[in-house]
Amino acid sequence: MTTGEEKAVLQTKATTCYTKIEDGSIVTPKGFSADGVHAGLRYSKNDVGVIYSDVPANCAAVYTQSHFQAAPLKVTQESIAKEGRLQAIIVNSANANACTGEQGLKDAYEMRERCANLFNIEKHFVAVASTGVIGEFLKMDKIRQGIDELKPQASKEAAVEFQQAILTTDLVMKTSCYEVVIDGEKVTIGGAAKGSGMIHPNMATMLGFVTTDANIDSESLQSALKEITDKTYNQITVDGDTSTNDMVLVLANGQAGNKQLNEKHPQWNDFKAAFQMVSEELAKQIAKDGEGATKLIEVEVTGAKTKQEANVVAKKIVGSSLVKTAVYGADANWGRIICAVGYSEASVEPEKIDIYLEDLCLFTDNSPQAFSEEAASEYLKKDQVKISVNLGVGDAAGKAWGCDLTYDYVKINASYRT
Amino acid sequence: MTTGEEKAVLQTKATTCYTKIEDGSIVTPKGFSADGVHAGLRYSKNDVGVIYSDVPANCAAVYTQSHFQAAPLKVTQESIAKEGRLQAIIVNSANANACTGEQGLKDAYEMRERCANLFNIEKHFVAVASTGVIGEFLKMDKIRQGIDELKPQASKEAAVEFQQAILTTDLVMKTSCYEVVIDGEKVTIGGAAKGSGMIHPNMATMLGFVTTDANIDSESLQSALKEITDKTYNQITVDGDTSTNDMVLVLANGQAGNKQLNEKHPQWNDFKAAFQMVSEELAKQIAKDGEGATKLIEVEVTGAKTKQEANVVAKKIVGSSLVKTAVYGADANWGRIICAVGYSEASVEPEKIDIYLEDLCLFTDNSPQAFSEEAASEYLKKDQVKISVNLGVGDAAGKAWGCDLTYDYVKINASYRT
Repeated sequence: MTTGEEKAVLQTKATTCYTKIEDGSIVTPKGFSADGVHAGLRYSKNDVGVIYSDVPANCAAVYTQSHFQAAPLKVTQESIAKEGRLQAIIVNSANANACTGEQGLKDAYEMRERCANLFNIEKHFVAVASTGVIGEFLKMDKIRQGIDELKPQASKEAAVEFQQAILTTDLVMKTSCYEVVIDGEKVTIGGAAKGSGMIHPNMATMLGFVTTDANIDSESLQSALKEITDKTYNQITVDGDTSTNDMVLVLANGQAGNKQLNEKHPQWNDFKAAFQMVSEELAKQIAKDGEGATKLIEVEVTGAKTKQEANVVAKKIVGSSLVKTAVYGADANWGRIICAVGYSEASVEPEKIDIYLEDLCLFTDNSPQAFSEEAASEYLKKDQVKISVNLGVGDAAGKAWGCDLTYDYVKINASYRT
Repeated sequence: MTTGEEKAVLQTKATTCYTKIEDGSIVTPKGFSADGVHAGLRYSKNDVGVIYSDVPANCAAVYTQSHFQAAPLKVTQESIAKEGRLQAIIVNSANANACTGEQGLKDAYEMRERCANLFNIEKHFVAVASTGVIGEFLKMDKIRQGIDELKPQASKEAAVEFQQAILTTDLVMKTSCYEVVIDGEKVTIGGAAKGSGMIHPNMATMLGFVTTDANIDSESLQSALKEITDKTYNQITVDGDTSTNDMVLVLANGQAGNKQLNEKHPQWNDFKAAFQMVSEELAKQIAKDGEGATKLIEVEVTGAKTKQEANVVAKKIVGSSLVKTAVYGADANWGRIICAVGYSEASVEPEKIDIYLEDLCLFTDNSPQAFSEEAASEYLKKDQVKISVNLGVGDAAGKAWGCDLTYDYVKINASYRT
């Protein structure tokens, strides 16, 4: 049920090549600092933030596959295209600066320039990110003032200021940090993310920022990010809506002092395993904090013909409005699960499918199983539930994460702008 | 903005080749009768129904594209395969007889046989349809009793008994009837449908039944059904979930006495136009009665490169949870509309798009437009709203229909089985 590559990861897990840093953040890797301030785009919460690296860092990025990339994404891509390195990321919340035409692009350039001036660095070392309402112009007077007030520090408190500054309808901050020893040197990977609605990433997520002091070339970093994005950020969904502003940025400043990482490095898989853990934790935190959500839903699909099909089926199940409402109602209505499998485009045969809620078998041998509705309902009341589906037609596996669909999702989104 | 074919339909509309029969139904075409009874699958409402034709009728059918077609669909396909004709359709609600393995298939065959015996007709002249909960076995004792009680009549009251028997979470009955004069003979087309949740048809819809006394060969009828299904049933969505039981069946018994219809008949487009009206009205009625819905949303896309792309974009917009909740909240959050255009796979250029709410322009010339939020909000409070998007890159047009996403959708689906 596991491929060779996955076994390798499981084995490295077994030998715990990486360690979770419970109170770690984006400033835990050496040479990174951050800050966030209240500029007045939101009523009282922070709304402008920055991540800063003491030296230009190698970088990697993935962006939304929407046809309508927001202005900040265009500016960020232009920055990275120049030299492949970044030293600062300037972010605002409350306004996505998307579908804002020429004015929007001008504003994103101004954010980049003002941030570059603040740190006296080249413009193309600055990335720009925005999140919030689509189609309104930025209040640049407030943004300017906010940027000028930023004073990045390497403290936990400063990281929290940043984490707060990137939230919109999010209820909780999303952060994760892991460390892995490479060439005898401690390499740390920290991440921060936001995302609660309009979450159905395609090749990227809402905003995700990962810092690491690893010494790694940009090409290898991009390759690892792409591979990991497909297994993590791209496997979450809240409402099936792909944003115009999705972006994950990774900065690697090399301060850890390990030998340069690439595919041929003997510990390449160790680095990737830790990087994947940070990404998976951020992705799950976004799914769990989905708008109106009361719980995280994890769907694991095994026995698929290909990994891609396993991922597709898992995401179809976790994205089904009917599955999401059934989980909210603690109703083990597995017919909706098999229905979602049925309309996915994967190779499936109804008579070979098994469906489990944790250890409880709901469907096997092409027949509904007698199970305790009470036990199933009790299980579904937990704040984290797992649905397992074995397709029985192959060896490949995949996972996806989402959340339940609740009254509060409707409430939040029926009045988002008011 | 309209293709040649659409212009032809518009022209026939202008000369009103067809007439709406306000109180018409599936028994208005000559030679059809129907009935519905309460067999005990639901608490008090009708749950077993039948449509009967005095003579074997030519037929056409489209089915769900789910990998998991329910047992009744398999039996119906087997019936039609034998001779291409049907004389009766036996239907039950409350239970979909889907994912029920060998027992389910046996039960569907028994329904077919019992119905054939009731009318003393060949088994393969009977189609079987079921709708309701997935994964539970039919209570066959009740079904048997229900079938035996059926006494089809050609009265309006009998048609209503049938229309009620096919509903599940539907709040209203769906029916439509048009008449068109072909070769000097009055040809009538009547339809009944059900559908409220798990509505995102792919090649078919939830249950739809169309009767006509037209004289038409099965091949031409199938070709017209396929073409019309793509523009009507396949363009509605309630929750993005495609059912295991979707099916539209059309019976044409030839009693009108027109010369046999086919593509070469000079009035082929007249017949298709009337047939399309019946199908579009049924589709819109299903969308408007979507689970928890308070209003019908129509999305019209013009200026697309191809009709298929116009349809895809229209369906993406009307299917977006964020658009649906915004409409429920009477919030003209057009950013969510353009976002849905952006993640569709159609050829689009942001700077060429216009977005309108009825006559109110929200976005054009690549810029948000100043508009009266009050006027927009008032408009969105109507029980039928229209969103128009001109992509500005071609001549093709398409429409889709859906409904708003409300607290009641969550309420209904968090407790469907209880």
